[in-house]
Amino acid sequence: MAQAAKAVDLNSDMGEGFGAYSIGNDAALLDIVTSANVACGFHAGDPEIMASTFALARERNVAVGAHPGYQDLWGFGRRAMTHTNGEIERLVAYQIGAAQALSAYAGHPITYVKAHGALSHHVFAQPDAALAFCRAIKAVDSSLVCLVMAFGAQERAARDLGLEVRTEIFADRAYADTGGLMPRGAEGAVIHDPEQAAERAVRMVREGAVVTATGKLLPTQIDSICVHSDTPDAISIAKAVRAGLESNSVAIRAFAPLP
Amino acid sequence: MAQAAKAVDLNSDMGEGFGAYSIGNDAALLDIVTSANVACGFHAGDPEIMASTFALARERNVAVGAHPGYQDLWGFGRRAMTHTNGEIERLVAYQIGAAQALSAYAGHPITYVKAHGALSHHVFAQPDAALAFCRAIKAVDSSLVCLVMAFGAQERAARDLGLEVRTEIFADRAYADTGGLMPRGAEGAVIHDPEQAAERAVRMVREGAVVTATGKLLPTQIDSICVHSDTPDAISIAKAVRAGLESNSVAIRAFAPLP
Amino acid sequence: MAQAAKAVDLNSDMGEGFGAYSIGNDAALLDIVTSANVACGFHAGDPEIMASTFALARERNVAVGAHPGYQDLWGFGRRAMTHTNGEIERLVAYQIGAAQALSAYAGHPITYVKAHGALSHHVFAQPDAALAFCRAIKAVDSSLVCLVMAFGAQERAARDLGLEVRTEIFADRAYADTGGLMPRGAEGAVIHDPEQAAERAVRMVREGAVVTATGKLLPTQIDSICVHSDTPDAISIAKAVRAGLESNSVAIRAFAPLP
Amino acid sequence: MAQAAKAVDLNSDMGEGFGAYSIGNDAALLDIVTSANVACGFHAGDPEIMASTFALARERNVAVGAHPGYQDLWGFGRRAMTHTNGEIERLVAYQIGAAQALSAYAGHPITYVKAHGALSHHVFAQPDAALAFCRAIKAVDSSLVCLVMAFGAQERAARDLGLEVRTEIFADRAYADTGGLMPRGAEGAVIHDPEQAAERAVRMVREGAVVTATGKLLPTQIDSICVHSDTPDAISIAKAVRAGLESNSVAIRAFAPLP
Repeated sequence: MAQAAKAVDLNSDMGEGFGAYSIGNDAALLDIVTSANVACGFHAGDPEIMASTFALARERNVAVGAHPGYQDLWGFGRRAMTHTNGEIERLVAYQIGAAQALSAYAGHPITYVKAHGALSHHVFAQPDAALAFCRAIKAVDSSLVCLVMAFGAQERAARDLGLEVRTEIFADRAYADTGGLMPRGAEGAVIHDPEQAAERAVRMVREGAVVTATGKLLPTQIDSICVHSDTPDAISIAKAVRAGLESNSVAIRAFAPLP
Repeated sequence: MAQAAKAVDLNSDMGEGFGAYSIGNDAALLDIVTSANVACGFHAGDPEIMASTFALARERNVAVGAHPGYQDLWGFGRRAMTHTNGEIERLVAYQIGAAQALSAYAGHPITYVKAHGALSHHVFAQPDAALAFCRAIKAVDSSLVCLVMAFGAQERAARDLGLEVRTEIFADRAYADTGGLMPRGAEGAVIHDPEQAAERAVRMVREGAVVTATGKLLPTQIDSICVHSDTPDAISIAKAVRAGLESNSVAIRAFAPLP
Repeated sequence: MAQAAKAVDLNSDMGEGFGAYSIGNDAALLDIVTSANVACGFHAGDPEIMASTFALARERNVAVGAHPGYQDLWGFGRRAMTHTNGEIERLVAYQIGAAQALSAYAGHPITYVKAHGALSHHVFAQPDAALAFCRAIKAVDSSLVCLVMAFGAQERAARDLGLEVRTEIFADRAYADTGGLMPRGAEGAVIHDPEQAAERAVRMVREGAVVTATGKLLPTQIDSICVHSDTPDAISIAKAVRAGLESNSVAIRAFAPLP
Repeated sequence: MAQAAKAVDLNSDMGEGFGAYSIGNDAALLDIVTSANVACGFHAGDPEIMASTFALARERNVAVGAHPGYQDLWGFGRRAMTHTNGEIERLVAYQIGAAQALSAYAGHPITYVKAHGALSHHVFAQPDAALAFCRAIKAVDSSLVCLVMAFGAQERAARDLGLEVRTEIFADRAYADTGGLMPRGAEGAVIHDPEQAAERAVRMVREGAVVTATGKLLPTQIDSICVHSDTPDAISIAKAVRAGLESNSVAIRAFAPLP
């Protein structure tokens, strides 16, 4: 069984507005999480929002990462789209570069990269796509940490390329015995009760394992817990998860050292 | 009078296709010019085209720069658009970052930045916009050279911020006595004859001055000559300009040292 | 002096979300206004949102119109952009067609057209652009009403082309003596107090004239009053304006007969 | 066996440029084909190009149709993307409306609709998506003809909804025994020789059947033959197909009566 964590990171998607549009409550979340995954302008975000999100994270002492997705603003990066692995490599490199520039501009450089939405599902499931994603990180800045979902192809790909890897789990999603997330449509796939999400987070961090819907324990390194930002109960779940962990003596801190 | 150049750079816009679309003849131009201004995905270009253009320039030993423009693919970045200076700062920073990432990916990092189209006209004319543009360069990577049109506000802004500056003139455009370009619609504003363009280039480099439509000489540093890439006579003009300069003992080489 | 209205329309912008983004409170506004200006996918809106907005307006018995703007989602159609009049003609025609199709699809055809944002300012001020806008309406469906701001070039252009014209004023914006709106930045340019907006609306409808910031009366036909949809006090202003008019015996009904 | 055609239509994709970009040789193709499938701004095309393409087709007496695709300019509508059937219905309706407006504007109304690229493959293969596509036509204008690939789900869907249906085959693509096209990557899947393409077209029209790669004959109504517009040999193939049919006494005329 994996070693139980004494400290864990909380990460959440941020900067997901576009122009006149905003989504989520970044200001509130930045008081709770320790890492902010910042959209890079393809599925959400624009240069204004990126710069102000990086600046806000700097003020709150929250680490920041690039959060690249498919070029699909209409679908918020959640629609599966056919791409060659070469295309994935280059669209990820582009977005990392944009995030590096605007985070440097804001005086708070990114320290990690995490895939968004449908691209995230793709690199979880497809080893070659995962390698493409990770090659982009390596080519642009091999010191960037690769934040991956536990049990997926991307963890292996990142390690094979020699990248620093951190592993995340979800507090408010049910897991299949394969380590994959239960599809959103399935009964009980999404946990809406803050206390239940908090209890799950505490248990999983203590056990060093994910608890599946059938009750199995799947051991994994747990460096970070992802909390959602765009659901009605996002803030209360994030707060409960943080409070639950802290009251169980798990320190909450960014996995990547703040620059 | 400014010192006549013994060597000069030739620059041209490149990588201006998008997806299935191509424009210009990059392959031919890369045998003629010494610096390629690469579109960054806002007015033209995409991650695929950026990466392949950087790679091609590397093979041909041509220096590369970021060529940011307005986010207006439909108008090819040639439409004037209202932006605050803060927006300009950040949309330029975004594009520089994307170009840095993909040029690093291609093993051929950018060494300079040059504004495109309507954004270029704006930073030529408006000192505050010029400062915003240059602040973006400084914030992202102060070692990047700022390539500016002679006689414009951007030259002053770049020097004020302590950036390396290189100055370009046009071989195939007529100049007003103010140092601005004659509007495209005006009689004789665009020179289509390759020999005439070549003669102008040679004379201007020799004199260390731009020759205006009324015959005045406006002294200026001339580090680079811009040749167009997307006109019917682009290749023949570029060839003639290069040949004319070389036969007059002006060496053609990139202003920025190749990395 | 123009004839004081016994009945007036209330119009508001609707369907201004995009994909995962929403803006404004359409559901609440549709209980107050009698005409909904529906974004057509260029500055806001998408096929999903257009169809659902038309369907919702149908349920609430609210008339619908096409609300074309510049192709600038990032700027929400509020950025001035250079376009030829021919381009304006065709980008407006395109958007009217899209709105016709989706409103027909929703069983609630559009009956009018109103310009959005920076395009609206442009056709208010520039007679040739106003003619271009109106030619688009005439070419696509000459039975569509042209809803225009009082005192602008578009009113004249629409009448010259033989279109049905309806004139709107703003309850919550201060007017210059020219009939133009005071710029948003100016002191008192935007009225935030619902009661004040309501009083203004009642007085202007009674007088058949706009009251300017200096207290002058500018007579005009007043067919509709525009209430904003995307400001914090949008709903309370809209409610107050409606209540004020009704308690002063002004009927609130759509200017264009519901189909 | 289906009745051999005495006359057949030739159709090709047109208006596939965007802004400064052009693709294909519409001017040349319009002298050869009898129906032009005009891109509607989602995968290619813009209001300017749509209007000028409709106007050019009018001059050449070529029928025009809406050619809707996925909203994916970068991928030219060729990338598979996940959409609900409801989304397909509405994105198709939107594009038909835009095409109706701009073709009316150009004085040459569209008479049919044909799906593009990845959307075309999707409605060929998926009956529910095909129904969604056809419902859009029916809701917007049930007099529009539905032009479908032979042997696909869309033919059935269109007939079930009571739409007018016309069936097309490809002269320069090899067919599988299922009636589907051989994948482009497969040996012999794409025919580059104009004479071979012409012979195939003549034989298939005469037989009233498609000839598969294994030599089988699959009977089908053949109302139109699709010739490509964006390949190097597009014009010579189109010319050869037309000449071959005419010299075999097959009249070439639009399937839909010109308005």
